[in-house]
Amino acid sequence: MNKPRLTQASAPLVREIAVVNEHGQPERISIPAERALTVYADKRELVTLMTLGAFPEHLVLGYLRNQRLLPSVADIESVTVDWEVGSAAVKTRSGIDQIEARTAQRVVTTGCGQGTVFGDLMDEVDQLVLPDTRITQAQLYAIVNTIRLLPSVYKTAGSVHGCALFGGFAQEGEHLLHFVEDVGRHNAIDTLAGWLWLQPDGAVPFDLVFYTTGRLTSEMLIKAAQMGVAIVISRSGITQMGHDIAQQLGLCAIGRAANRRFLCYSAPQRLAWEQLTAPTATVSHGV
Amino acid sequence: MNKPRLTQASAPLVREIAVVNEHGQPERISIPAERALTVYADKRELVTLMTLGAFPEHLVLGYLRNQRLLPSVADIESVTVDWEVGSAAVKTRSGIDQIEARTAQRVVTTGCGQGTVFGDLMDEVDQLVLPDTRITQAQLYAIVNTIRLLPSVYKTAGSVHGCALFGGFAQEGEHLLHFVEDVGRHNAIDTLAGWLWLQPDGAVPFDLVFYTTGRLTSEMLIKAAQMGVAIVISRSGITQMGHDIAQQLGLCAIGRAANRRFLCYSAPQRLAWEQLTAPTATVSHGV
Repeated sequence: MNKPRLTQASAPLVREIAVVNEHGQPERISIPAERALTVYADKRELVTLMTLGAFPEHLVLGYLRNQRLLPSVADIESVTVDWEVGSAAVKTRSGIDQIEARTAQRVVTTGCGQGTVFGDLMDEVDQLVLPDTRITQAQLYAIVNTIRLLPSVYKTAGSVHGCALFGGFAQEGEHLLHFVEDVGRHNAIDTLAGWLWLQPDGAVPFDLVFYTTGRLTSEMLIKAAQMGVAIVISRSGITQMGHDIAQQLGLCAIGRAANRRFLCYSAPQRLAWEQLTAPTATVSHGV
Repeated sequence: MNKPRLTQASAPLVREIAVVNEHGQPERISIPAERALTVYADKRELVTLMTLGAFPEHLVLGYLRNQRLLPSVADIESVTVDWEVGSAAVKTRSGIDQIEARTAQRVVTTGCGQGTVFGDLMDEVDQLVLPDTRITQAQLYAIVNTIRLLPSVYKTAGSVHGCALFGGFAQEGEHLLHFVEDVGRHNAIDTLAGWLWLQPDGAVPFDLVFYTTGRLTSEMLIKAAQMGVAIVISRSGITQMGHDIAQQLGLCAIGRAANRRFLCYSAPQRLAWEQLTAPTATVSHGV
């Protein structure tokens, strides 16, 4: 595969500021960075993303992928991020097909997010076939615990979303593959998608599990499914369209996951409970 | 003032679904609705918003206002929401000036949000003069407590953001003016902005305070300032650009507000502490 050339632009992820607490006393705390990154594809301005700036090149790749602007990462020659001017210059190998029309439609998404070509995504949902990913309750708890123990901007400064890909459960693992944080959960999942796009065929396990601190809205589940993820775990809850899509896809959506508690919203057959109680089958096939 | 004619489209805000808990037992819980609302202005498609659907007409008004597409609510003849087809038809009195150019630029925002003409907003920030709003620590706690006691979709179903406008503090009050919830915090503040746009001159107090459950990113603070809000209170934290903008505006940003605790990030002179300790002045003037 022709991998794109990427810069490795870095910038401070947190800043220390002075605040006054409820006793009127000064304190110093850390807050997360938030910076504007304007993406240009072949010198055409596409979008400005507000980001923490941890992995800006992967964010740009994931944005291009999840906006369906390019079919393959091999179509990208380079991504050059320059924080001095807040720009990411994408050079493609042969241009973006119908770029005018495809960047004209704006969809503004629910929770924490960004516009995507949502309509197009929904059309493709029916064609997705998810892998036969299954995990045990112990593996679920291990994932949640791994996230809990990771050093993070969230622990230092709060106010960011984290998300991660795990895999290799068929080999009795719960291997953390990649963890990213960003000011918004959409940028975070796009960054993961960009990272995944760069991995050679066969380099990642088939049974990917996606963890997010954010809510499971429709678009988050579609983006996860398009990465080939069949199990999604959230610290937060789910919305109605998220639930509909998870059921439609047979994607196991798990929410409120913390302290050995969780709720399974869909496809419970992908999760092996350790108690004797068998999960009801009514959840996996919705109205 | 010529008020626009508005439908009062309503739809269920929550849905009950079957889930399986960590013991493998079935439960029934409520989750928030999430529905697509495509906004047409004079039959031209503008955007699709993913929304809870509580006050869709106000959301559309606030979207038009915060995207700076129309200078006055009097320019709008009607907003007609039809949930059957998920559409909001806006009829303007004399069209939207330069609509092609003004809807072409896409900015994707940080946390929970939507694209806005962020660059334009930043240009206008310098021109904003905020009112002389001040509150006491007791009024701050009363605001937080009022929110805590409100019935809400959040309490029933979780996974939504709430925000509210308070005012009348100069008259020893902490009057709740309006409270809205939506799946994303941007839709919630846009809905408040739409509601405020409809109020006749003089009908709301000058000293508005904005409360949000969401994070204080740059765009949330700009939208608040453009409503004439000089004090913003959040249950969550602040980002670096949010902090920069609050300092630039002299806007008092308060975060982590819960259980009689909080942090004041900027403009502490707007807040009267009840202890004897005087707040340091260093916070209000940035680096």
